[in-house]
Amino acid sequence: MSRTIDWDGDAVVIVDQCALPESYRTLRLTTIDELVDAIKRLAVRGAPALGAAGALGVAMSARLHRGPGGTTGATDATNAVAADAERLASARPTAVNLRWGVERALAALPRGADAVTAEAVAMLTEDELVNKQASRNAADLVLRHCSRRPLRLLTHCNTGRLAAVDWGTALGVVRHLHAAGHVEYVLADETRPLLQGSRLTAWELAELGVPYRLLPDSAAPAAMATGLVDCVLVGADRVAANGDVANKIGTYALAVAAARHHIPFFVVAPESTVDRELPDGSHIVLEQRPAEEITHVAGTRVAPQGAQVFNPAFDITPAELVTAVVTEHGVLHVRS
Amino acid sequence: MSRTIDWDGDAVVIVDQCALPESYRTLRLTTIDELVDAIKRLAVRGAPALGAAGALGVAMSARLHRGPGGTTGATDATNAVAADAERLASARPTAVNLRWGVERALAALPRGADAVTAEAVAMLTEDELVNKQASRNAADLVLRHCSRRPLRLLTHCNTGRLAAVDWGTALGVVRHLHAAGHVEYVLADETRPLLQGSRLTAWELAELGVPYRLLPDSAAPAAMATGLVDCVLVGADRVAANGDVANKIGTYALAVAAARHHIPFFVVAPESTVDRELPDGSHIVLEQRPAEEITHVAGTRVAPQGAQVFNPAFDITPAELVTAVVTEHGVLHVRS
Repeated sequence: MSRTIDWDGDAVVIVDQCALPESYRTLRLTTIDELVDAIKRLAVRGAPALGAAGALGVAMSARLHRGPGGTTGATDATNAVAADAERLASARPTAVNLRWGVERALAALPRGADAVTAEAVAMLTEDELVNKQASRNAADLVLRHCSRRPLRLLTHCNTGRLAAVDWGTALGVVRHLHAAGHVEYVLADETRPLLQGSRLTAWELAELGVPYRLLPDSAAPAAMATGLVDCVLVGADRVAANGDVANKIGTYALAVAAARHHIPFFVVAPESTVDRELPDGSHIVLEQRPAEEITHVAGTRVAPQGAQVFNPAFDITPAELVTAVVTEHGVLHVRS
Repeated sequence: MSRTIDWDGDAVVIVDQCALPESYRTLRLTTIDELVDAIKRLAVRGAPALGAAGALGVAMSARLHRGPGGTTGATDATNAVAADAERLASARPTAVNLRWGVERALAALPRGADAVTAEAVAMLTEDELVNKQASRNAADLVLRHCSRRPLRLLTHCNTGRLAAVDWGTALGVVRHLHAAGHVEYVLADETRPLLQGSRLTAWELAELGVPYRLLPDSAAPAAMATGLVDCVLVGADRVAANGDVANKIGTYALAVAAARHHIPFFVVAPESTVDRELPDGSHIVLEQRPAEEITHVAGTRVAPQGAQVFNPAFDITPAELVTAVVTEHGVLHVRS
């Protein structure tokens, strides 16, 4: 399976991202409960993959509630699917793609469960194409902005094929640049608290044969200050109309440091991440994650009993610190 | 034992900082090998505590190499102590206090092992007084610079009594301010990779009864951006003559963000941390720590086999980002 999330005819199949890098295994999810749980505990994660998960979840619900006659015409069934859809869409509050995927699949419900499934499956293929194009657009922009060859790139969290149906967004840029022989190395933030950089991005970079080094998130500004970074590449969980970006906690810290060192800072995401109804980032609800993500690491308690935490999953990077937001349609926002 | 490091007449006794917060226990170190090992694996750490460790190590060496007549007069013994002193001083390359403690104790060697021990023991008492005064000076400065009451403070790594013989530096400021009823809460960076914030600072704040929240290091700039921080307090491992500061990795990231948000950024350290022979931070050698600190957490592998890392123990914060460096003598450097 090269897709991170797929439909096998009866169930949603995902690469279990909680098991990496120790083991690469798939999970077969056959109920909405299982899928919502997988989304909440980040067994499936990443903005594009969440869009696919939302759509496939609605497809699964439509099939589960299909009446004996093979249609979802009954009001009860429609209401049940709508309730499942809302549970899916609200499983993670910040990721706009999740709700986008849910709503797009739901729009096909009046045409029956098979139509919903067809729509969701089409979205999988589309996601791969969209990511390839967005990251191609961004790779071209990086080559125009950064003169040094080969390039030293810095990235945060995981934005590769594991964050999407396939290919990836910011890490997809690395794939394009590496294929053209332009990458010296990638500095990959470990990305506390859930270590997506150490567990997932490192695994993908090793799979691709790209030289990389992991670093503590807090060391990235020091790496910039010592001249080790030509360009920063990140994804997005939500982009406001003015170009403000909600992304994994720590993104803002990178953007502030990159601006100080005049290092280009690119955000790469599908158009579905852009929420044009939000005027700016101040309107984005930021998910607070459980205390255990900070007080425990790899199952071991590292903080005293009773420790309180500040654990937002995302932060907001203001548009003024972003060199460009790049989607499959081109450059959405360029810093003036 | 309220001292983090002490002399029991025959051995160096330390609070084992690798065991906290799970258990509070002491280690009795009777050889230079044991002490060097404790320094390297950070069972004893923190600039002031390392100064004491260096001095006590030289005292222990002088006693171990004392001839049958009870003096260290013999050339062989002197050479042996000098060799031990060099091993101690170079156990961690960035911490200037370690070498300072070693050299100060070594200066007493011509007067015999007992004189070296007396000098080292006097340094323990002095360290407590120095830290209390430096943090008192800084607390006064914080109250002058920050108008909000009660204060919301942010700190990084551990700079409390566990980092010193007693009392602490930046966390000592919190103690003074808390005693005067001026602290609303402390945001304590968890401080990857070794989690001194989660393991040690949280434990000390709980012991003191100060409300606190742990946060991922990368979330501190987001906390500043959302108006949760009035002031940043950090320690230092080395301060150059121009006010550049070497401190725990991540300090620079905080300083860059604090400057952007006009949040005062104070460095609190004993005078012994100031290296007046260094014109600026570019001359400071930064220790690179082992890959396992990043690839493993709490004994569990979190990154793929063969992962390379960028793991500097410290970074350099330029003087222009520091509001003030405060020592027991007063304010060393103020941002113009």
